[in-house]
Amino acid sequence: MALIVQKYGGSSVSDAPSIRRVARRIAQTSQAGNDVVVVVSAMGDTTDELIDLANELSHKAPRREMDILLTAGERISMSLLAMAIDSLGVKAKSYTGQQAGVITDAAYGKARIIDVTPSRIRLSLDKGHVAIVAGFQGVNQETNDVTTLGRGGSDTTAVALAAALGADVCEIYTDVDGVFTADPRIVPAARQVQRISYEEMLEMAASGAKVLALRCVEYGRRYDVPIHVRSSFSGRVGTLVTDVPGRTIPGLLPEDVPSDSTGNEEDSMEAPIITGVAHDRSEAKITVVGLPDVPGTAARLFEIVAQAGANLDMIVQNVSAAQTGLTDISFTLPAADAPATLEVLTNSRQEIGFDELKFDDQIGKLSLIGAGMRSSPGVSARLFGALRDAGINIEMISTSEIRISVVTRIDTLDDAVRAVHTAFALDASGDAVIYGGTGR
Amino acid sequence: MALIVQKYGGSSVSDAPSIRRVARRIAQTSQAGNDVVVVVSAMGDTTDELIDLANELSHKAPRREMDILLTAGERISMSLLAMAIDSLGVKAKSYTGQQAGVITDAAYGKARIIDVTPSRIRLSLDKGHVAIVAGFQGVNQETNDVTTLGRGGSDTTAVALAAALGADVCEIYTDVDGVFTADPRIVPAARQVQRISYEEMLEMAASGAKVLALRCVEYGRRYDVPIHVRSSFSGRVGTLVTDVPGRTIPGLLPEDVPSDSTGNEEDSMEAPIITGVAHDRSEAKITVVGLPDVPGTAARLFEIVAQAGANLDMIVQNVSAAQTGLTDISFTLPAADAPATLEVLTNSRQEIGFDELKFDDQIGKLSLIGAGMRSSPGVSARLFGALRDAGINIEMISTSEIRISVVTRIDTLDDAVRAVHTAFALDASGDAVIYGGTGR
Repeated sequence: MALIVQKYGGSSVSDAPSIRRVARRIAQTSQAGNDVVVVVSAMGDTTDELIDLANELSHKAPRREMDILLTAGERISMSLLAMAIDSLGVKAKSYTGQQAGVITDAAYGKARIIDVTPSRIRLSLDKGHVAIVAGFQGVNQETNDVTTLGRGGSDTTAVALAAALGADVCEIYTDVDGVFTADPRIVPAARQVQRISYEEMLEMAASGAKVLALRCVEYGRRYDVPIHVRSSFSGRVGTLVTDVPGRTIPGLLPEDVPSDSTGNEEDSMEAPIITGVAHDRSEAKITVVGLPDVPGTAARLFEIVAQAGANLDMIVQNVSAAQTGLTDISFTLPAADAPATLEVLTNSRQEIGFDELKFDDQIGKLSLIGAGMRSSPGVSARLFGALRDAGINIEMISTSEIRISVVTRIDTLDDAVRAVHTAFALDASGDAVIYGGTGR
Repeated sequence: MALIVQKYGGSSVSDAPSIRRVARRIAQTSQAGNDVVVVVSAMGDTTDELIDLANELSHKAPRREMDILLTAGERISMSLLAMAIDSLGVKAKSYTGQQAGVITDAAYGKARIIDVTPSRIRLSLDKGHVAIVAGFQGVNQETNDVTTLGRGGSDTTAVALAAALGADVCEIYTDVDGVFTADPRIVPAARQVQRISYEEMLEMAASGAKVLALRCVEYGRRYDVPIHVRSSFSGRVGTLVTDVPGRTIPGLLPEDVPSDSTGNEEDSMEAPIITGVAHDRSEAKITVVGLPDVPGTAARLFEIVAQAGANLDMIVQNVSAAQTGLTDISFTLPAADAPATLEVLTNSRQEIGFDELKFDDQIGKLSLIGAGMRSSPGVSARLFGALRDAGINIEMISTSEIRISVVTRIDTLDDAVRAVHTAFALDASGDAVIYGGTGR
């Protein structure tokens, strides 16, 4: 008997038939003798519809009210799911984030979890009940007001609860079969990954893979929670995020279909080199042209950029093409943060002393990820060679210990992903010893 | 400066434009220097839609889960309303039933209020904020689970909060202008009532008038809360429920339009006789035919009926027309309770020893209400005379100190209401000194 935390996203509970299907899976897991805690998101588009309503009523809604509004969606889905499970003859009780002991700071809209004290959930499990918990929400310890955790909040709720309860596995149910070596919509030959380390999964998530949120993986790594990413539609065994090679997946049911991956079946074989190829279309590039090439310029520039609150990604500095004694600095950032950043820069033009700003939202980022590249020379040479052979121009480069990222024109990104996927023998027909992951 | 509790029903906040309209009224009331607490229902049909979803998923949903589900509607409307008020430059904060201190028993779906401890609401008012409170919901003191108050729950929340806060008035905003001497859809000459006593309002509500829920009026009477029933659409002054003749209505705004009633302008004049005419189409009649006419038969019959949990209304016993030594007993009850009641009776036929059951859901009930009838002889004679002249057959009669009710065929009910309304000079063209109330 295992203690299993399952998380179902909005697309898995979008209407009554999907809720029933999810309820059957939960009931089976419970009837197989497991303790089951379920974290659920709001049904389908509920949250977006609530945001639209709020925008109709207020241009700048108070964040506390916005959080109260948005948490209604999970309260609806959690109680409906509990009813559906109960109607299958399995006792289920639903709990809000507050009741489940998810305690956060007061940063409405993007609250951080401070502590998880799931005493009511433990009591529920002790009585043999399935506990359904509202994802994405917690309670502000000081005021007892509800908070939301922001992007990837339900995944994070699930992993945090799994850590606090000492669960054997945290199953993240989604609408894809697991983590792939690349987005299968771009690379049809992409393979499902059987196991991926936290660090690789973090780099994948940070590089645009959307299957798991960054903070959920961070939480899982900190508390060593095995995360099983799988589809709520197919019943297939998915991808296990863990640092332990060859670890078996707890909580599988007899109904579960083995993964049809042709990938890393043998964890015991030679060390894998490349995990996969991630891509990201959501960034934009700002170039500050004609900065004085003297010490302190960059520091002042990024102090000012920080006022806009943007998370910068890649930063590149060059001697200015325009004039000697000057320099150009380019950086990428989420396109959504660009307007505010351009505004603070424009307002500080005098102070910083630059010639002009260039803005470019037609960029794409490709990232090659793999713990093996630490000790494997020639990875970047093979990457750049593959891009050259495919006729793709590289505009920016950045690297970490287990990742190389390049920026290209957005309309060449798909070709670039396919070329690199093939060059590193990640295609399903290839026979290199690899394992990997990807985003959508 | 007054402390005003306002309650807005689902039809008053059914979409973004209605929420904006309500927000403007609240902002005006606050800007006029009043302390304002607002109780709000779920938007339009939200609650019905949630019930439909629950019924799709479970034939017998656990009540605790049902209550969690249904309270989501008020959380949505309260936060949206707070945002809309905030966008008008008036600070507003929303509070759940739990946060507002509405403490109930554990009777999910029809919880009773045990206590109201609105310390957070007081703090909010002290800061000059408008406090928006979710209606219809409280918290089970023992388990910290949310409960719903059942029918009329938001009205009751408002009156209970007004009592606990010592408010000057509880304004119940609805989709009609106030309490009328009869349903204006049936009696076009019906008049709006300016003032009505709690006792008369209770009889009106119990007799089918739907403008205020019975328990809300009971609560108001117990704690002497003046209740101002008015329209959220017209801006007209409505009906004040209070036992104090000539009481002025607190919290009126300069924009408020005086009531256009031709009714009880002069509370100081001679005592009014008749309040109004209420009607009810929601009841059914069960007749138990051929009971042994011996002591204890009725007691046993109603013990068995009580098992079905129905609230009986009128009860009539006659000598049986069929056979001597036997008797017939007829009673009315909410039509919705009839199937369960018929079932327990059928199962006990042997034990009780009756010949047959007759079921009739084609009945209508007319009630004439007025505190003045206590001391005015001839009221029932005039009532029966009016019905006779209109050719309407009376099937059952019951009376209280301030009410006479008769059961007729359902298809003669409207004619009956009009005939009685005219006979007691309640029509707008009449000149009797009266005041009254009605339902829809």
